[in-house]
Amino acid sequence: MALMARDQYLSSLRAFDHSVFIQGEKVQNIVDHPISGPPVMAMAETFYQAEHEDRASLFTVPSHLTGEIINRFTHIQHSVEDLVNKILMLREMGRKTACCFQRCAGLDCMNTLYAVTYEMDKASGSHHHERFVEFLKYVQANDLVPAACMTDTKGDRGQTPSMQEDKDQYVHIVEEKKDGMVVRGAKLHITGAVNSHELIVVPTRALNEADKDYAVAFAVPADTKGVTFIYGRQPSDTRRMEKGRSDVGNLLYGGCEAMVVFDDVFVPGERIFMKGEYPFAGRLVELFAAHHRASYGGCKVGVGDVLIGATAAIAEAHGTEKASHVKDKIAEMVHLNETLHAGALASAGKGFRTPSGAYAVDPLMANVCKLNVTRFPFEISRLAQDIAGGLLVTMPSLRDQESPEIGSYVKKYLVGKKGIDSDKRIRLLRLIENITLGAGAVSYLTESIHGAGSPQAQKIMITRLADLESSKSYAYHLCGI
Amino acid sequence: MALMARDQYLSSLRAFDHSVFIQGEKVQNIVDHPISGPPVMAMAETFYQAEHEDRASLFTVPSHLTGEIINRFTHIQHSVEDLVNKILMLREMGRKTACCFQRCAGLDCMNTLYAVTYEMDKASGSHHHERFVEFLKYVQANDLVPAACMTDTKGDRGQTPSMQEDKDQYVHIVEEKKDGMVVRGAKLHITGAVNSHELIVVPTRALNEADKDYAVAFAVPADTKGVTFIYGRQPSDTRRMEKGRSDVGNLLYGGCEAMVVFDDVFVPGERIFMKGEYPFAGRLVELFAAHHRASYGGCKVGVGDVLIGATAAIAEAHGTEKASHVKDKIAEMVHLNETLHAGALASAGKGFRTPSGAYAVDPLMANVCKLNVTRFPFEISRLAQDIAGGLLVTMPSLRDQESPEIGSYVKKYLVGKKGIDSDKRIRLLRLIENITLGAGAVSYLTESIHGAGSPQAQKIMITRLADLESSKSYAYHLCGI
Amino acid sequence: MALMARDQYLSSLRAFDHSVFIQGEKVQNIVDHPISGPPVMAMAETFYQAEHEDRASLFTVPSHLTGEIINRFTHIQHSVEDLVNKILMLREMGRKTACCFQRCAGLDCMNTLYAVTYEMDKASGSHHHERFVEFLKYVQANDLVPAACMTDTKGDRGQTPSMQEDKDQYVHIVEEKKDGMVVRGAKLHITGAVNSHELIVVPTRALNEADKDYAVAFAVPADTKGVTFIYGRQPSDTRRMEKGRSDVGNLLYGGCEAMVVFDDVFVPGERIFMKGEYPFAGRLVELFAAHHRASYGGCKVGVGDVLIGATAAIAEAHGTEKASHVKDKIAEMVHLNETLHAGALASAGKGFRTPSGAYAVDPLMANVCKLNVTRFPFEISRLAQDIAGGLLVTMPSLRDQESPEIGSYVKKYLVGKKGIDSDKRIRLLRLIENITLGAGAVSYLTESIHGAGSPQAQKIMITRLADLESSKSYAYHLCGI
Amino acid sequence: MALMARDQYLSSLRAFDHSVFIQGEKVQNIVDHPISGPPVMAMAETFYQAEHEDRASLFTVPSHLTGEIINRFTHIQHSVEDLVNKILMLREMGRKTACCFQRCAGLDCMNTLYAVTYEMDKASGSHHHERFVEFLKYVQANDLVPAACMTDTKGDRGQTPSMQEDKDQYVHIVEEKKDGMVVRGAKLHITGAVNSHELIVVPTRALNEADKDYAVAFAVPADTKGVTFIYGRQPSDTRRMEKGRSDVGNLLYGGCEAMVVFDDVFVPGERIFMKGEYPFAGRLVELFAAHHRASYGGCKVGVGDVLIGATAAIAEAHGTEKASHVKDKIAEMVHLNETLHAGALASAGKGFRTPSGAYAVDPLMANVCKLNVTRFPFEISRLAQDIAGGLLVTMPSLRDQESPEIGSYVKKYLVGKKGIDSDKRIRLLRLIENITLGAGAVSYLTESIHGAGSPQAQKIMITRLADLESSKSYAYHLCGI
Repeated sequence: MALMARDQYLSSLRAFDHSVFIQGEKVQNIVDHPISGPPVMAMAETFYQAEHEDRASLFTVPSHLTGEIINRFTHIQHSVEDLVNKILMLREMGRKTACCFQRCAGLDCMNTLYAVTYEMDKASGSHHHERFVEFLKYVQANDLVPAACMTDTKGDRGQTPSMQEDKDQYVHIVEEKKDGMVVRGAKLHITGAVNSHELIVVPTRALNEADKDYAVAFAVPADTKGVTFIYGRQPSDTRRMEKGRSDVGNLLYGGCEAMVVFDDVFVPGERIFMKGEYPFAGRLVELFAAHHRASYGGCKVGVGDVLIGATAAIAEAHGTEKASHVKDKIAEMVHLNETLHAGALASAGKGFRTPSGAYAVDPLMANVCKLNVTRFPFEISRLAQDIAGGLLVTMPSLRDQESPEIGSYVKKYLVGKKGIDSDKRIRLLRLIENITLGAGAVSYLTESIHGAGSPQAQKIMITRLADLESSKSYAYHLCGI
Repeated sequence: MALMARDQYLSSLRAFDHSVFIQGEKVQNIVDHPISGPPVMAMAETFYQAEHEDRASLFTVPSHLTGEIINRFTHIQHSVEDLVNKILMLREMGRKTACCFQRCAGLDCMNTLYAVTYEMDKASGSHHHERFVEFLKYVQANDLVPAACMTDTKGDRGQTPSMQEDKDQYVHIVEEKKDGMVVRGAKLHITGAVNSHELIVVPTRALNEADKDYAVAFAVPADTKGVTFIYGRQPSDTRRMEKGRSDVGNLLYGGCEAMVVFDDVFVPGERIFMKGEYPFAGRLVELFAAHHRASYGGCKVGVGDVLIGATAAIAEAHGTEKASHVKDKIAEMVHLNETLHAGALASAGKGFRTPSGAYAVDPLMANVCKLNVTRFPFEISRLAQDIAGGLLVTMPSLRDQESPEIGSYVKKYLVGKKGIDSDKRIRLLRLIENITLGAGAVSYLTESIHGAGSPQAQKIMITRLADLESSKSYAYHLCGI
Repeated sequence: MALMARDQYLSSLRAFDHSVFIQGEKVQNIVDHPISGPPVMAMAETFYQAEHEDRASLFTVPSHLTGEIINRFTHIQHSVEDLVNKILMLREMGRKTACCFQRCAGLDCMNTLYAVTYEMDKASGSHHHERFVEFLKYVQANDLVPAACMTDTKGDRGQTPSMQEDKDQYVHIVEEKKDGMVVRGAKLHITGAVNSHELIVVPTRALNEADKDYAVAFAVPADTKGVTFIYGRQPSDTRRMEKGRSDVGNLLYGGCEAMVVFDDVFVPGERIFMKGEYPFAGRLVELFAAHHRASYGGCKVGVGDVLIGATAAIAEAHGTEKASHVKDKIAEMVHLNETLHAGALASAGKGFRTPSGAYAVDPLMANVCKLNVTRFPFEISRLAQDIAGGLLVTMPSLRDQESPEIGSYVKKYLVGKKGIDSDKRIRLLRLIENITLGAGAVSYLTESIHGAGSPQAQKIMITRLADLESSKSYAYHLCGI
Repeated sequence: MALMARDQYLSSLRAFDHSVFIQGEKVQNIVDHPISGPPVMAMAETFYQAEHEDRASLFTVPSHLTGEIINRFTHIQHSVEDLVNKILMLREMGRKTACCFQRCAGLDCMNTLYAVTYEMDKASGSHHHERFVEFLKYVQANDLVPAACMTDTKGDRGQTPSMQEDKDQYVHIVEEKKDGMVVRGAKLHITGAVNSHELIVVPTRALNEADKDYAVAFAVPADTKGVTFIYGRQPSDTRRMEKGRSDVGNLLYGGCEAMVVFDDVFVPGERIFMKGEYPFAGRLVELFAAHHRASYGGCKVGVGDVLIGATAAIAEAHGTEKASHVKDKIAEMVHLNETLHAGALASAGKGFRTPSGAYAVDPLMANVCKLNVTRFPFEISRLAQDIAGGLLVTMPSLRDQESPEIGSYVKKYLVGKKGIDSDKRIRLLRLIENITLGAGAVSYLTESIHGAGSPQAQKIMITRLADLESSKSYAYHLCGI
């Protein structure tokens, strides 16, 4: 078994000396820092689950390369069952953490590079696939976390990479060396970047010949010289720094993104997986997008489960759980949440083998899944807030409840129906606040729109993948044209 | 091979002497009657497809009872693959016909009875399953069409069957005989009833002991004495009777429903599949509902394909197909249509074995699928009409186009962009009219709401099937309760 | 008083010798023809209401030109109150008829020409306004119906009028004469054209200098030589020809549109209201659009009232009116319907004086109103069908109910809750069918999308009318830019 | 003129000695406290606007009691124009502050009490109206802010006030005195409570005779003995305490709510406006609800303007403002926002005189307006986030931008299109974050659901106010029943 224990993971991060800035200050130990700790713990849960025998079938799997038992988060999917199990694992992780647990982008990226490097080599005689397989073995054997770094800063969106005034707006080669290359640029919105051991960098868009120097994919350790992480701010993030922390809503976990700067970073030759093969940049982006868009029908659905659970619980606490409109709204929340899941399952069910042997999800269904994800969580959140009641945003803080002067007022006046004390109500409401208006909303709402590509990207892919010619021919036949 | 050819099917119906009334008149030959002919042809297509070798894998399958090749419309599903293939077959039939082809309710009902008679026998020592298997063999061997007769007339909806003033508002036993029983009542909305060889009658709701006499399931040939069919009217139905028929929109096919009256009909013992086992009525209804709700994520999606195709074609004819809002709306139509399909595929992908060996779909996903079906076709229709333009409902008739006096005006003034004549525009618009406002809308819109159970029935099932306790426990854990 | 009695109106139409074709045949007397009769009766209701003293305040008003009491359908609005009263009158007419009563397009067009001819004359020294005022006096004094003919056939939508291969795709001057001009072309979707005394023709789009010959506005009597009407087909239209007619749903009224061909029609000088003033074509279209888009928040809301009423009545007949989901859905229908009305009232409330003295509605609100109209009636219809039940589209015909052989089955099995006979249920369901799937759906659904301009036209106007610069400045101020 | 200058208002609050707790600590000076300061400044803006001559017509009006010029926020509306102007004033305030400026609940409550005390006196011979008029004169003359305290804590929602185990869950009389009464209880979600000079307390629901002691309305100064304010926590609230504060999004303003505890508070007789007149509690709640629900079609629309402005500005900064999907989404945002406004304007336009002379809005339209407010801001926010891009939630903090170590990275890599620096992008994104996920979302989203009553309350009122009987009669007529 090639599994890292949760505690090992935490130790590995504590030992790490990478350059992380949180709100202007360099942080040495991200595990024990109040802001970055919860994201670390969410990621750590992917190790912890795999430690449990009863969840082994979901969280572990034999490596197709070595046969050794590995964490499913490092596995290359080789069957429809693999694709389905990934979705189910992500939903379970979403339920456990109610946040972005940050390990699926790397997983989806590895599955993409596995397939695309194979195709690149077939087409151009390069040797990217064997180098990538070596890297993958290393990741699997050590149960490492690689973060996927895709989105460039883009500068002027009306210009291609090579046409930018500041050429560094897309990561590119600035110098070629005998044993590698030097790159510069920055990647945005990188999920779990600061908690990862490795960074996998890939292009963010289709490229043409003029952009050849931007067609680069590679992996470097997160503590490589020249790499700097700037941690993103989230709504209500500093509640984690307050004593007692109970206003934080989600007591245990959180997600995080960072801006990752590559300031003349050296990449050794054996870690280069694309270099100049610009015709494959588009293929890579699309395959990654398909994998990752399907993932959202797993993880976000799990977060939805928690939100639905919290909402059902607060309705019970208020004694409104049998009101017909409350029952109807909870049924609607479940319905929307399961519709998201259906898209992911369908994309996996229609999965197929790529030339490399790795399986891909159905891209049309994956895009359909994701487009729903850009919409329904907002309606689910609205319904949750509807049932939660206005107290969600007007209630006193933890410190008020504990105050010797006014704590008794809080306790007296915020009881629910018989047997429900104020503490229970407040905790449930804080959790709903976290997911719909607080730090958790980053992942549940905004990331649901933009993660794995924005709605318009899905619309474009749906148009491209829809077989309108065939649909037209059926229509013509029926009306006699 | 136990397949009936399309022509044999048509002959079998022509030879049939059942009691069918269309708009007040008894009809001897429903195949050649202009109103009932198109529905017959839609059903006939299920035979025609199976005749083609290249579609054999979708439309035929070996019987699990005899190993003989049978039409998939008479097959008991025994794997996830079977469940998926059924959905794919229904979508393909929807595309071919753009209407309700009427053969899936019987299929879903047979799959239900197969499982439930088995469970009934295990529980109560009855012998319904073996009788049903004999019936099934007969259906499969002769490639027959059995219509599923479920919905009772219900009278006062606030009362149970036995409490009704007029006891006949639910089909029930009025006399027991040595070799069978006599039943009375009527079933509504029976899809394809007049085109079917056999009628399978099942209860429409959960029953209690007082309603024991209403707990009956059986099959009788459609030409049994005492059975009368009253054919339902559809919007624009009589266009089929007009000379030339081109205003009909869908030149080839149509759906139909009928009210089926059972006026003291004798059912022989070997055709009885439930008699008094009232605790199984609810189980039967739910299992049928799950199968049939998933079916809607096949057939309606196929009709949606045709509507999308016709809409894309009319946009081309108008020269608007590259307008950004038109592209966006067509992408949205595809997106909604595929979301419906995703629910059905997910319900099949999560399918499971029942004690009888037959497979059932995941009931939560099946209900989620159907609830979307009650909504999205209305939006897809709205978008189709938006792109089609107002001419959809203001255009002249075929006879105007052919008129010696004014035909030239129609032809001159209804051209589209260069190269598109008025005939093409009109035909496409008539097809869109058919599906969104005409005879086809019966199936695409209203039946999408009520077929296989109304939206509220799905909401109730979703509530019952959702695992809220588990969701609550995840929430409690995260907020420290 | 210058009011025509309903019977006079009918007589005037019977006496009319215009060239009307219905489904390929020339019709002499449109009043007594089964297809065109109901639209005539809907229009006639605008006269009938004005005959009643108790409705006089809504349906009549003193002419601002003569002071005489005229029908409000011929009035030039001169105050916010006038604008509001027009909306209220249209809603009342919608309730009375449940269809398009066809007289508001002409009204809105006259209000537009009144204002625009004034502005044209001020700008270019022409004398269109005084000619138009003369025409208006004639209309008011005789209580005539002028139909507004706007939408050209357009041919290739990518080309301007003068660039079309067939120049006649937009109505234009083909010959100038001393005492007038000769025009050619055709107008589509003309509401109430065959029931009108006069035809007012106006341009359909903004024009540039090259399209000068297309910048024409004028009025001619409907029986002018060279004018031909081709009556549009509607879903289920021929039910009106069936004996007994009760399957028709709406027993009394209907709407109609026609294609109007102008084949070298002579227009005398005194009836010309624009001739070559191309810069005013766009202004005219926008002002008409604003008036007419606001109108839809009156008439369609009235039809919505009837649909809501029929739905509430069928719920009562079924005994489901107290079910919480039914109550919720009816509340939703009312909510959506009143939201449509709010837009129209707001556009009137924010109305303002044009240079001519006539009042215009607020164009932003009018477009907002109409854009909602393109959406909500589909959802209201869906909810109506949901509550109505599947019988809506599967029920027997009137002739079945009356049949000596099977009528008793229909009557026995289609009762509702105690005291409700089958006839009542069927009639209500046929009315709901009419509005949501039949002839009435033409007006309630498709026309709601396209009448007064398609959704995209509203989106464009909303963008143009929104004061984004001001909104940005508020934002900049608050975030310190 | 009886107007208070903004600075006087701030001084009056600084001088105030009321008992306010923020996060467990008693605060002496709420004006200069970083958490409560921005809400004070939002309220202060209502004074500041009235100081400007050019806005006088919107923000000031002659008192109907004294004729003196007063702030419109203390005015009793006496015409449709008054009702409309209130809505316009609220929209303007929303634009100025992008938050809840907290002064309209008191305004709506005064308008309500003015009408209801009059009716109470007519019915029962009491003298509440004259006492209330005295109070009102005092408020107007001194330009005071009274907060409306309505929502009780409610305890077990299944029980009426007098049936609660803890009787204090609804504010009630605990002792009658010769010169007044003593009350106990607590009010929740009280907007602007800590910034107000006076507290007006009214019942929260219809009451029956058993609840007579709960039928109390009165006013007391905010610094009355026994009154305690517990300030509610909002998402991201403590960003206001950070040095530099630019991550706060809205640099100037904010809203606030508080829990207000009445622990045996003495109310002098002249300040009592209802005492035991339980039949009027329901009337009061409904009238207040109508006024206040209409208000939401003013203030929230103004906040929507700012959000739309910020979104249009960020699209420009990114160079995406001409992308067709961006234009379409901004048009949709405007459309939804104006639809909200239409409801409020329509409720005002249909306003009517109550027996007291004060005007009331149309209650159906007011409820329709508010029900839309519970929905559309969520969709507007979703669209804003869509256009804003993922950086909204992943961007570095202000301190990162200012850091000597990494500030240059932030500045280099977060530029927009040519000429747009990182600071502008970040500021706009922080404002969008504030309104859709931060402190501003409290008001724009959650309060839009629950303020002035939750969606279900609107559904119930819409059902009650809809004239279904009339709608049914139109339907019956048309189908011949």
